[in-house]
Amino acid sequence: MATLPSWNDTAAKQAITDFVARVTREGSADYVPLNERIAVFDNDGTLWCEMPIPVQAFFADDRLRALAPQHPEWQTTEPFKSKLAGDMKGVMASGMKGIAELMSATHAGMTTVEFGQIVRDWLATARHPKLGRPYTEAVYQPMLELLDYLRANEFTTFIVSGGGVEFMRVFAEEVYGVPPHQVIGSTIKTHFEMRGETPVLVRDPALDFFDDKAGKPVSINKYIGRRPIACFGNSDGDREMLMWTTLGRSDGRPSFGLIVHHTDGEREFAYDRQHVLSGQLDKGLDEAPRYGWVLVDMKTDWKTVFAER
Amino acid sequence: MATLPSWNDTAAKQAITDFVARVTREGSADYVPLNERIAVFDNDGTLWCEMPIPVQAFFADDRLRALAPQHPEWQTTEPFKSKLAGDMKGVMASGMKGIAELMSATHAGMTTVEFGQIVRDWLATARHPKLGRPYTEAVYQPMLELLDYLRANEFTTFIVSGGGVEFMRVFAEEVYGVPPHQVIGSTIKTHFEMRGETPVLVRDPALDFFDDKAGKPVSINKYIGRRPIACFGNSDGDREMLMWTTLGRSDGRPSFGLIVHHTDGEREFAYDRQHVLSGQLDKGLDEAPRYGWVLVDMKTDWKTVFAER
Repeated sequence: MATLPSWNDTAAKQAITDFVARVTREGSADYVPLNERIAVFDNDGTLWCEMPIPVQAFFADDRLRALAPQHPEWQTTEPFKSKLAGDMKGVMASGMKGIAELMSATHAGMTTVEFGQIVRDWLATARHPKLGRPYTEAVYQPMLELLDYLRANEFTTFIVSGGGVEFMRVFAEEVYGVPPHQVIGSTIKTHFEMRGETPVLVRDPALDFFDDKAGKPVSINKYIGRRPIACFGNSDGDREMLMWTTLGRSDGRPSFGLIVHHTDGEREFAYDRQHVLSGQLDKGLDEAPRYGWVLVDMKTDWKTVFAER
Repeated sequence: MATLPSWNDTAAKQAITDFVARVTREGSADYVPLNERIAVFDNDGTLWCEMPIPVQAFFADDRLRALAPQHPEWQTTEPFKSKLAGDMKGVMASGMKGIAELMSATHAGMTTVEFGQIVRDWLATARHPKLGRPYTEAVYQPMLELLDYLRANEFTTFIVSGGGVEFMRVFAEEVYGVPPHQVIGSTIKTHFEMRGETPVLVRDPALDFFDDKAGKPVSINKYIGRRPIACFGNSDGDREMLMWTTLGRSDGRPSFGLIVHHTDGEREFAYDRQHVLSGQLDKGLDEAPRYGWVLVDMKTDWKTVFAER
């Protein structure tokens, strides 16, 4: 099979294959040993669709509605009242404290095993409102091929996402071929306890780490412990990890940065600078040429966006 | 070559090889698929010598002495004054706050790259005071063989230690064959910053996570995202991760727990219940028979402790 079949033969694809050829050519000065072939991928908007809101926000909405009958007090207390009424302005009025309360109500209080099952059950039936397919099929075919292509060239692929790590791990191995220990994301505080002779880990209602922006290189260092040589993102949330991967390397390794630019309003969604709630790409559009990051124009660079069903 | 050549043919070795045979026998009910063959190892006292004090404490001592000429104020302020005078009672009098100050003075304030180099340089020249060899050669030969044996049976091996993750990653790949992203440990807070066009991560003087006791299953969940089927420790600091690995599994997977009991005062050090500062094994001695954890008697189960030099 041809390399990266869902990519058109444009400069973006050429840049990818040139980089891989360069770091895998034994004996060349740019050769990178296998254990240093680390590639990091953002998830929302890079590997799967994040519009009109990130998938995990859909999950939180559905979960809130499912739990509402057990919480009559939510009908009269903020931010639950506004959220259940679909009044985002009302939710926003409750600020970060309100957002944290919504996250805690939907993501905490259960064991890690229970949470995994809740996510698994939800993914099995939920459908993307515009695309009409399961979220796990709202993944970008060209990026799946890119993951495979890098692994075929003995890269180790990691996800580094602002999304919840225990949310992503439910599907990342099956959908992306990325095992749980190579999925890095935001974390909730968790504690260990014995229930009789059975140990459990309980998800507590408190954020442990928000894995976005300058948090991404921090978590790359904490979890991977080695500087990636390739980084793939789509928003300014990925800016610092693109910088960490590609700028001022004291080890002299070649590196590669790529930004997926959402230009295809017909096959997917078109958004960048003006989209402030999530997935905003503003600084990145200006910095890509300056730092040599490849800008993928989804409309012209991708033959296919989503796999046929 | 024979399996586990530095292990005597006793019950401990038999238990290990029986377990591995059991989970790797295709078609059997106990067969465990490759991606679930996760084995976790404590480091201090399990993979390398932790007596008379843990290696990282020797590092902190040496680093404090190296930095002292630049800090004349340490001669008159606690806990530095007591520490430099070798007065542990004086250090202890400053409590957890004092310990934190010593850790910060020796482990924080530099970039992650600089810290790695400091550790590398130290390991290159430092020698264990009793064993007279580099710390990276004060590793247990039977455990190195066990790591290799598990990997040959397609286990993925992780270190889960109370030690500093960036300290261990300097040598873990070369010495244990465990790559940086499979080394889990205590972490210090770190922040990202740009110095001109060069991104750096700076180690801040604050603990991020102490990876010991009930913290171990928490970090296993956070970093690995999957329950191990085999766990190797030597102290009560490993108790909760042994429990998490072996007790009340809802997935029905077979599991294995092992505790290295330091019984050999001649070839190494003999200590257990009474040794309270680090490496105390008290509850574990009582619980091992109850929970079916294998107790390794170093004196009789190990043919060799350290590799010949």
